[in-house]
Amino acid sequence: MDLDKLFRPKSMAVVGISRKNNLSPGRIILLKNEFEMNVDVYGIHPEGGNVEGVDLYKSLGALPVNPDILVIAVGPDDTIEYIRECVEYEIPASIIIGGGFAEIGGEGIKRQETLEKIAIDNDIAVLGPNCIGVYSPPLIDTVFLPTERITRPPKGSVALISQSGGVLVDQFFVKFKERNIGVSTAVSIGNRAVVDESMLLEYFSKVDPETSNIAFYLEGFKIGKSRKFLTLAKESDDMTICYFGGITEQGKVATLSHTASLGGNYKILSGALKQYYIIQPHSERELLTMLKVYDVLSHKKNPFGANTITFGKVAILSVSGGHGVLCSDMLSDYGLSAITFTEEEKEEMYEMINPIAREIASFNNPIDLTGSVLDKDIENIIQYLSNIERIECILLLLLPYPPNISFQIGRRIANVVTAKKKPIITFIPYVEKYQMIIESLELSKIPVFHSIKEVVQAASALKDRTRIMNLKKDNIFWEDKR
Amino acid sequence: MDLDKLFRPKSMAVVGISRKNNLSPGRIILLKNEFEMNVDVYGIHPEGGNVEGVDLYKSLGALPVNPDILVIAVGPDDTIEYIRECVEYEIPASIIIGGGFAEIGGEGIKRQETLEKIAIDNDIAVLGPNCIGVYSPPLIDTVFLPTERITRPPKGSVALISQSGGVLVDQFFVKFKERNIGVSTAVSIGNRAVVDESMLLEYFSKVDPETSNIAFYLEGFKIGKSRKFLTLAKESDDMTICYFGGITEQGKVATLSHTASLGGNYKILSGALKQYYIIQPHSERELLTMLKVYDVLSHKKNPFGANTITFGKVAILSVSGGHGVLCSDMLSDYGLSAITFTEEEKEEMYEMINPIAREIASFNNPIDLTGSVLDKDIENIIQYLSNIERIECILLLLLPYPPNISFQIGRRIANVVTAKKKPIITFIPYVEKYQMIIESLELSKIPVFHSIKEVVQAASALKDRTRIMNLKKDNIFWEDKR
Repeated sequence: MDLDKLFRPKSMAVVGISRKNNLSPGRIILLKNEFEMNVDVYGIHPEGGNVEGVDLYKSLGALPVNPDILVIAVGPDDTIEYIRECVEYEIPASIIIGGGFAEIGGEGIKRQETLEKIAIDNDIAVLGPNCIGVYSPPLIDTVFLPTERITRPPKGSVALISQSGGVLVDQFFVKFKERNIGVSTAVSIGNRAVVDESMLLEYFSKVDPETSNIAFYLEGFKIGKSRKFLTLAKESDDMTICYFGGITEQGKVATLSHTASLGGNYKILSGALKQYYIIQPHSERELLTMLKVYDVLSHKKNPFGANTITFGKVAILSVSGGHGVLCSDMLSDYGLSAITFTEEEKEEMYEMINPIAREIASFNNPIDLTGSVLDKDIENIIQYLSNIERIECILLLLLPYPPNISFQIGRRIANVVTAKKKPIITFIPYVEKYQMIIESLELSKIPVFHSIKEVVQAASALKDRTRIMNLKKDNIFWEDKR
Repeated sequence: MDLDKLFRPKSMAVVGISRKNNLSPGRIILLKNEFEMNVDVYGIHPEGGNVEGVDLYKSLGALPVNPDILVIAVGPDDTIEYIRECVEYEIPASIIIGGGFAEIGGEGIKRQETLEKIAIDNDIAVLGPNCIGVYSPPLIDTVFLPTERITRPPKGSVALISQSGGVLVDQFFVKFKERNIGVSTAVSIGNRAVVDESMLLEYFSKVDPETSNIAFYLEGFKIGKSRKFLTLAKESDDMTICYFGGITEQGKVATLSHTASLGGNYKILSGALKQYYIIQPHSERELLTMLKVYDVLSHKKNPFGANTITFGKVAILSVSGGHGVLCSDMLSDYGLSAITFTEEEKEEMYEMINPIAREIASFNNPIDLTGSVLDKDIENIIQYLSNIERIECILLLLLPYPPNISFQIGRRIANVVTAKKKPIITFIPYVEKYQMIIESLELSKIPVFHSIKEVVQAASALKDRTRIMNLKKDNIFWEDKR
């Protein structure tokens, strides 16, 4: 089944447009795509007319072209009729927004079976039902929530697939935007009657050139499809990341009323995922941290090339002793360790920083340059650390509170890092006034986080990536030691 | 030793003001207090003159009054001389900013012993050395980082005591501001030569009327003082919260170069803390979540009165199924559980919401009102849940993306909650455009968090508080089951 028209359509038709209610999902989708996206969009209404200046067509037959995709936002019985029209008009893809299918049981299950049969017999890529569809910038956006209420993530390397529309829009869109994580395509799979997580994994891993990292929020695999999913993940050159909801007893009860998925035993599932090189973050925050660091340093365009993190050996550079302590505390939990500096190295670092700071600074690992630090000191030390081969990654805890740190510091660090190509992960507090520093770093592919824990999680995620890539190459199963 | 002059001085003198360097710590402190705070401040410079229009006095003897406190920002030997002057001029309190004492070892240790002896013999409340001092709004602020670089937290019920100045300013000030957590007084204790964590616990718990919650960032107790600290915590009517840095092997190494504290075995320490009713958050984020929920609902002014959380029985109300699932997953880890609704209750809830939503909504626990929800539905259901006695707390996952949720929703919820007095903890995504909803809730003492995990952590923290208060009453040791 070809999914390309689902994500890269040239033309789109929408049914289920209310001429009275300006908040009806079909109407929002029509206008959003007409005014904000690049696809050619056609609205269908049995009586014609227009909404907000956009003319409506009376039927699919009345359109000037056969559209690549039909978005259906009507009741369940009418939905089936429209899928039959897709057959008639040779429309290769469809997104079904509405519910009333398997998720309501009984009659809905039969309806979904009918739907599935028509789609598969006629090779129509149907997404949903009961979903919010696709966000594939700059082409289409079928998220039927008003644009002014939601946030869109930036363009990037992460394909996002979610079994929950709410989680997709809120946990992902909002937080991706906040953290500057880029999305290639976002997909809400709903009841996944036809297009399911395995087909999407295959598409984003083998077909889509813009994706390097594929992230899933699932409440369970589609029955009978888990083996296919695992095999695809193992074969993929991309990172596959799965975050599961509904893994506790209480969560399973909630899942049953949400997506009617049966999660099964999470421990067994989790063991299988590991063997197939699928990363499972331990929390939503860790998921976001991983996706951010992979998006910035994803293997297809890693600005640091072969400079990978194999053993987890880090150097911590801070201007606050307490931050160094908190960071050190977390290393071993995340499979990282601080290298030990020789006396000679300590002496050399001592010599290269300003006379006031050097007397109170500490050159162990963590290095604490103290509040008496100057821009030049930070620049010099990063340059110095970049030349030490046994350091695989620098964790920079950059608090811009000391009075002599200038707003140029971001650019100066970026220049060193770009030249030296030593991976560096930075903490800068999330204070809007430091945006100038944050942006200079992120423009140069240096990921910036706003908590120490995320910095440690990010370094750990890079180490995991290296290990997974090596294990895949050698076909050795992965064991997560954490 | 009376600490009142340290936190509530009427007059303050500052030494160590550079007339050339406008970023020198003494100069920043002088001008910050002169221009931004309420204390009467006097700058001392041996040659007099003025800085930025503020006249300087040539010596302490030249001042028009004997100040309540002397802030010392000079080198270590001169510092000792100024402490002697405190004796001469009967100045009851002093903050020593500079280092060069115990933290550098050798001669520094002797210096600190001299300092300590003078202070104790003459009953001078000395804070530091090697600290950033006190932020006690609206009176004084000796944080010597330029105001334009840092953020100040709002005024509230939390006394913050930190062994690291960097952690105080960054991990606390910035994040308190972001999360709207209020501070009564913030203290950086540095080398704690004289004033230590036990004296501060005693002061904030017994003397200061504005504090209800006392939070510590420590890298170890002062030697010989842990017993006193534990006993004070046990006797206190306030919540005592301790967050420790330097608890892992790697962290201990870092701590040695930072504050020269010896943390000892954290497991043993942690066991002792629990027995004395001291709360220990498992992460920095949990610390912040606890402090926020205690600040809003702290026992001295709890707007919900006796309506406490004893068993951890909650109802989850969401407009996104996936959010409900994620929340349910976390309950048992945090000692909470979702109550079960009777068929009759489900039927009643079904009847009270709009006809479109009710057909696709789910009335299990979590309740999922779906994207077809109206303001009135949320209001009605909260009202209904508030009347169910076996629900101790409502967890509201409010995503304002559905098109029919209005910006009035915050106020409407607040009205119900204020009338019903059922504790409610709310999740609203951190999107600036929803500030109108967030503020209406927080103005009515309804804590709002920006992740599901924090909502669960907050409910759990309220349960811990109830248990601790009950155990203290009955003098039973606390065992943390987590």
